[in-house]
Amino acid sequence: MHELLLEKAITGDRKSIARCISLIENESEGYEELLHALPELKEQHVIGVTGPPGAGKSTLVDGMIKQWVDKKKKVAVICVDPSSAFHQGALLGDRIRMSNWFDNENVYIRSLATRGSLGGLNAAVLEILLLLNACPFDLVIIETVGVGQSEVDIAKLADVTVVVLVPEGGDEIQTMKAGLMEIADIFVINKSDRPGADLLMKNLMEMSAPVFSRKEERVAVVKTIASQQEGIAELVKEIEVILEKPVDHQKKAELYASRAWQLIQKRRMRDLSYGKLVEDVRERMKGGGWRFYSWVDSFAPGRD
Amino acid sequence: MHELLLEKAITGDRKSIARCISLIENESEGYEELLHALPELKEQHVIGVTGPPGAGKSTLVDGMIKQWVDKKKKVAVICVDPSSAFHQGALLGDRIRMSNWFDNENVYIRSLATRGSLGGLNAAVLEILLLLNACPFDLVIIETVGVGQSEVDIAKLADVTVVVLVPEGGDEIQTMKAGLMEIADIFVINKSDRPGADLLMKNLMEMSAPVFSRKEERVAVVKTIASQQEGIAELVKEIEVILEKPVDHQKKAELYASRAWQLIQKRRMRDLSYGKLVEDVRERMKGGGWRFYSWVDSFAPGRD
Repeated sequence: MHELLLEKAITGDRKSIARCISLIENESEGYEELLHALPELKEQHVIGVTGPPGAGKSTLVDGMIKQWVDKKKKVAVICVDPSSAFHQGALLGDRIRMSNWFDNENVYIRSLATRGSLGGLNAAVLEILLLLNACPFDLVIIETVGVGQSEVDIAKLADVTVVVLVPEGGDEIQTMKAGLMEIADIFVINKSDRPGADLLMKNLMEMSAPVFSRKEERVAVVKTIASQQEGIAELVKEIEVILEKPVDHQKKAELYASRAWQLIQKRRMRDLSYGKLVEDVRERMKGGGWRFYSWVDSFAPGRD
Repeated sequence: MHELLLEKAITGDRKSIARCISLIENESEGYEELLHALPELKEQHVIGVTGPPGAGKSTLVDGMIKQWVDKKKKVAVICVDPSSAFHQGALLGDRIRMSNWFDNENVYIRSLATRGSLGGLNAAVLEILLLLNACPFDLVIIETVGVGQSEVDIAKLADVTVVVLVPEGGDEIQTMKAGLMEIADIFVINKSDRPGADLLMKNLMEMSAPVFSRKEERVAVVKTIASQQEGIAELVKEIEVILEKPVDHQKKAELYASRAWQLIQKRRMRDLSYGKLVEDVRERMKGGGWRFYSWVDSFAPGRD
């Protein structure tokens, strides 16, 4: 149905990529067919960038794009803001940033609205990553606001997770501490010309010492001033060091398995709707006595 | 397989009821068959009693049992403590209370350990209620500690929900307020000889006025001193007033539909295990390129 569209997306045509993503995002007719037609998975690096609102993630990502474009890399960026309904400003920021790269064939930037997943990362993100895997990008950056579950989700999707903080974000560290230490491969202290940067650096270095952290190696901490392009080259270098290490196959396998589980469950339940079940019960209750389990058995037989 | 057991449980044999409940609670072999063999649903009143730890719920329920036994009613009590692992004292309390009624053929009391359900009410409770529906009880009381989700779950299961508070529980009201107002049909101020009872009464009356609450009628507030049997007769009377009203068919239908949904989903997914999916992915990843969606399709075909 959408063969031609997919074919063009795979060659890197940005309009076709955009249309494919919209099909997936809206679960429009033919989107499962489209996904089914994707070629075999290839190696493609995914970098997660997360942190509290106002940490300067967008500016930082903008700087990262510049670094990689200068190195002749092709980069796709997916921005997910689970709270976007309340932060129109963030979307506006994306639009402004997007215009920097509008004419560059090697950069594709897309903001996603939220769908389904309760407070977590947009449920379509893995599917969009599968699509982008088929497209000629060397790197995919997923940027998300770290609120609750989403920063954990992003760590599952990404090969490298960058957690962005600001000097005055001491309180956030206190509340996010345990979770952050689990997921961060690299900490960025952005706006590091502000007071408190050195103290935050010291705290992060202590927290991320192998003795406190489950990870084998100390987590890198990089100071940046994204608005002045300061420290970005160092950040990109740290990312590349991690990308050169062997892939964590178990982590990838768990990611695909959990998404597969959700998809299989959704597909196997699609003949049913909760509303129809409720109506059905009401009909049966009107008729007087009814047997709950015989009714359930009519949709899925019991084991015995 | 367990026909005889069920037959005896249905006549009211308490040992057989206990064994049936254990089968269900542990999902032992034959439990689905047992449930499948249940007769048609009959009218049976379910009363939920919830509130914070230490509010005196057990003593109150003990007093309620006494009232109904005096009226020649047969009563079953299910105690669910989602935090029981941390509150051995509560279980001990149940055992002591249980001994009060041990020789009484018209009373059956059972404590449940938690199972599955994340922080919510024991997932087996609806199934146990279906079993008890087949047994000759006039009333079933479900007692649960109100922590987070469980008090909302109990309200879905029960015809009448009694929320038990104590005078010094002002803080709990503040945090539980919105949720409590949604679910309470009756508020009990237990230990009402303690200071603060009148203030709590006033606050509850104000909060439960129809103008603030979604309910059409003012929620009843009853003062009790359960340890001295004071106020229990009034409480029982308020409960009976509500039980005489017509059944809320929509609420019951939604309860059965949502449990059916869970059961159907569980049954339709039982050929799969997450662990096996992860292994399967790892095998495929070793083999080099693989197609995610073709793999998912092998478990459940896509729509297109």
